[in-house]
Amino acid sequence: MDKQISDRVVERLPKYYRYLQELSKNQIQRVSSKTISKALNITASQVRQDLSQFGGFGQTGVGYNVEYLRDIMKEILGINNVHTAIVIGGGRIGQALISYQGFRGENVYIKAVFDVYTEHLKSVKGVEVYNVSELENYLKNNPTDIAIISVQKENAEKMAKRVVDLGVKAIWNFAPIDLYFDGAVCENINMSESLMRLIYKSKV
Amino acid sequence: MDKQISDRVVERLPKYYRYLQELSKNQIQRVSSKTISKALNITASQVRQDLSQFGGFGQTGVGYNVEYLRDIMKEILGINNVHTAIVIGGGRIGQALISYQGFRGENVYIKAVFDVYTEHLKSVKGVEVYNVSELENYLKNNPTDIAIISVQKENAEKMAKRVVDLGVKAIWNFAPIDLYFDGAVCENINMSESLMRLIYKSKV
Repeated sequence: MDKQISDRVVERLPKYYRYLQELSKNQIQRVSSKTISKALNITASQVRQDLSQFGGFGQTGVGYNVEYLRDIMKEILGINNVHTAIVIGGGRIGQALISYQGFRGENVYIKAVFDVYTEHLKSVKGVEVYNVSELENYLKNNPTDIAIISVQKENAEKMAKRVVDLGVKAIWNFAPIDLYFDGAVCENINMSESLMRLIYKSKV
Repeated sequence: MDKQISDRVVERLPKYYRYLQELSKNQIQRVSSKTISKALNITASQVRQDLSQFGGFGQTGVGYNVEYLRDIMKEILGINNVHTAIVIGGGRIGQALISYQGFRGENVYIKAVFDVYTEHLKSVKGVEVYNVSELENYLKNNPTDIAIISVQKENAEKMAKRVVDLGVKAIWNFAPIDLYFDGAVCENINMSESLMRLIYKSKV
């Protein structure tokens, strides 16, 4: 698994994992590239090429071993390990992310939320609430893998830089601005861009 | 504007629009491909190639006319027209989307929310609350451009198919499963996939 995996393949990795996970839950033991292809809207030859990169080799007439391939994917993705997260910005989006339990499937646990105003956040259960002024102190004492940025656009870059400077290596950004940093990885969830693409594509 | 625009360019379109919109707000009248390139993390030659497809031609030493290009982008994207939307699934994500006013920038107005249980939704302001059994009736009387799907994974495809069969042409899907339909456009916001990519990239 030493060779570099291209960005396009990385885009598809989680889709394979999620699908294999689902098959496994439904006690399906073998799957063909054709079935994967249909389910994920990826050509069968692309599926075979992608999976061969991860040591997944389907057998003609038998297909891929679902659990084996899923476990490999899980390890490649790194979600077999627990990761800790904090949320910066306790507004609507931040609160929705905290309430949403779905990320435990990826072994990600939100430990704390930071905001300038914290009163409205007192009720959040299982997640500690801090004033943003305590961010430096918190991160010194609680090494954190992922910072989820859900502040206003104007403050997103500043807040992300602050946590990156404090050693956070992964930024999951929900503010409507794309963030990039040297020394940290950013994934930008840009809902407004997605909405624009939807409108564009539905009219062409 | 008759020629087909490639998927990769469509991905970048909203980024250009958003950036030009921001420049325009800050009263900046001209911008070079180099400045756009830096801001959006796209090579300058790619910027020039993309923008030339939309009739945007920068002049050496002068750059692009910000407002002119922004207005073209707005028209190409179709966000100069008002679009109506409904939310299907009034859980945490659905509620966050309803509360979030940011989509008005894209001229998108959420008119109604549908759920099996509607009692907890009574307080949502400006958005009518309906039981999902009223969906057919509602759509007959209120032609709707966009259906926002925020139900459980298990129900996403079924609900999306229901609205597509009733004539909705655009599906904005937040359920953790990719949807594809003939006769409708789907944009899938897959947070869990994004999170997996983030974890993968931060460990390589």
